[in-house]
Amino acid sequence: MGQRTRISVAFWPIPCRFTQKPMGDQMHILIVGAAGMIGQKLAQTLVDNGELNQQKITEITLFDVVEPTAPSGFDGLAHVLTGDLANPQIAHELVAGKPDVVFHLAAVVSGEAEQDFEKGYRINMGGTQNLLEAIRHTGFCPRFLFTSSLAVFGTPLPDVIPDNFNATPQSSYGTQKAIGELLVNDYSRKGFIDGISLRLPTIVIRPGKPNKAASSFFSSILREPLNGKPATLPVPKRTRHWFASPQMAVGFLIHAASLNTAELGWRTLNLPGVSASIAEMIRALQRVAGREAADLITETPDPLIEAITGSWPKAFHPARAKALGFEAENGFTQIIQSYLDAEGNTK
Amino acid sequence: MGQRTRISVAFWPIPCRFTQKPMGDQMHILIVGAAGMIGQKLAQTLVDNGELNQQKITEITLFDVVEPTAPSGFDGLAHVLTGDLANPQIAHELVAGKPDVVFHLAAVVSGEAEQDFEKGYRINMGGTQNLLEAIRHTGFCPRFLFTSSLAVFGTPLPDVIPDNFNATPQSSYGTQKAIGELLVNDYSRKGFIDGISLRLPTIVIRPGKPNKAASSFFSSILREPLNGKPATLPVPKRTRHWFASPQMAVGFLIHAASLNTAELGWRTLNLPGVSASIAEMIRALQRVAGREAADLITETPDPLIEAITGSWPKAFHPARAKALGFEAENGFTQIIQSYLDAEGNTK
Repeated sequence: MGQRTRISVAFWPIPCRFTQKPMGDQMHILIVGAAGMIGQKLAQTLVDNGELNQQKITEITLFDVVEPTAPSGFDGLAHVLTGDLANPQIAHELVAGKPDVVFHLAAVVSGEAEQDFEKGYRINMGGTQNLLEAIRHTGFCPRFLFTSSLAVFGTPLPDVIPDNFNATPQSSYGTQKAIGELLVNDYSRKGFIDGISLRLPTIVIRPGKPNKAASSFFSSILREPLNGKPATLPVPKRTRHWFASPQMAVGFLIHAASLNTAELGWRTLNLPGVSASIAEMIRALQRVAGREAADLITETPDPLIEAITGSWPKAFHPARAKALGFEAENGFTQIIQSYLDAEGNTK
Repeated sequence: MGQRTRISVAFWPIPCRFTQKPMGDQMHILIVGAAGMIGQKLAQTLVDNGELNQQKITEITLFDVVEPTAPSGFDGLAHVLTGDLANPQIAHELVAGKPDVVFHLAAVVSGEAEQDFEKGYRINMGGTQNLLEAIRHTGFCPRFLFTSSLAVFGTPLPDVIPDNFNATPQSSYGTQKAIGELLVNDYSRKGFIDGISLRLPTIVIRPGKPNKAASSFFSSILREPLNGKPATLPVPKRTRHWFASPQMAVGFLIHAASLNTAELGWRTLNLPGVSASIAEMIRALQRVAGREAADLITETPDPLIEAITGSWPKAFHPARAKALGFEAENGFTQIIQSYLDAEGNTK
């Protein structure tokens, strides 16, 4: 009976089992995957804010497979590191300084994870495991923010997805993200980290050029016309999906880093976003940039892109995240305005 | 555009990418975890049937960490092997003979996985990965049956759980099973295996002695009185849960091994079972074995066991599995009768 009781107790969540640094005027932040678009904006925003959760940011470590650009205007200690997260030793070195907050954004993207099965599992699953194991073995309990993805969802999907809807990924990338969520939850439950997984909406408008992602056109049909260039629409205008701006994604990560997790329970959150059809996106573009911008879009149907995006989530009812204070843009015009505010000088 | 199209195609399920053995009078079956109660009953049932999916069973490989007992009356080639599935080399050796069907039942049980964090991940997650990777590298495409568990579910739960309900495990064991399901789905989608994960109901009546599992009392409150011995009930009689007999679990596995998977989609199934309260279980015991058997049960409340079992699934609406021909017992009396038929001579 004694033994049975001992086993039973351990099933329940326990608070962080390692000492956390005392509250004070010191904050060390690690960003894994810091060279990516979100990682770069996050680093700069943190530096611009100067503090996180009312603690002055005194040290920041930026890591990626290619060298991240250090944020400008930081008066603390900045480390810029490159390496392969699939190497456990690298993961150990990354967390040796016991950062208070870890943002884990690193991933092989969906197209590449699908084409290179081994690389996807090695980085997206193995790298995440390495990072969590390095933290557990080092023996500290950071706030750990993991960026998950709508790719964890597979068909059939309801028009509006509730918080308790099953993750049935139909890509290796989505599978690896769903596994990461499970690990973050279990390591948090066991008191090794204080983690949250955020299922980010699809991020638009991404600055830069079209990329290999099947979702790339969602950004380019707006970005290219806003910059006076033509764009191709491969799907019907009725196609509906779930969006947030890069600035909002950064805001979600910073909000999650400051959240009280005592009553959180399951550590994965569906996030608020803007549910919009392509037609609604184009109407917003027209409102902001005029008919001549919208006229730069040419419809060139691609049945494969249509089939893929047709299987994606159309909208969510993210009740838990909303109750925790996460808030999305109020519509697509705001998403476009957010791009112009941030990148307007690129025109 | 060509590149985009190539990526897109790969997201869709593809049939087995390795040659499967031609249909014929040859069937090699591998059971990983063959020393356990279900593994032993499965091996004997397969040998008694003589065939699987209308093919004669000519070779059977039984593997476990302790030596499995070989089934009696088998006139084919039987291999009995022991080893550590966490060793990738062992996994490679296991599948070198390219078995047509792999039953992967091996797991560190929930209590042990909770107490020994590393061992749980090493065997339940790492072992499953090793087995899948060994199959992928060997280059054949077996039917792969993975036994998952109700432990993938966590609170809050509806009274009746639909097929699309989220898996939010609250134990390391449940986490590892949920990860196994995701891997089986992705390896199947990529054509490396032809896999199905079965979320087995809680198995009662387990023969033998009470064990360390929190669920142990579900069997012992029936088994002990059926054998004239006293038993302790640690939870209220209103406690409701989801059950199947060991014989039914074996039947589910064999049914799954013969299923047409062409239209299956998501490779994880919630299975039919009997939803019964403790009061209903005791009434069934009384019907089968009389009031004197039921009187052997003493209520000794254990708040921890009550809290744990109170968080477990009470019932399912397993529409997909039922449409695929899986059928459960029609009530608890049949579950008790199944035990007496199989184990009656142990009294």
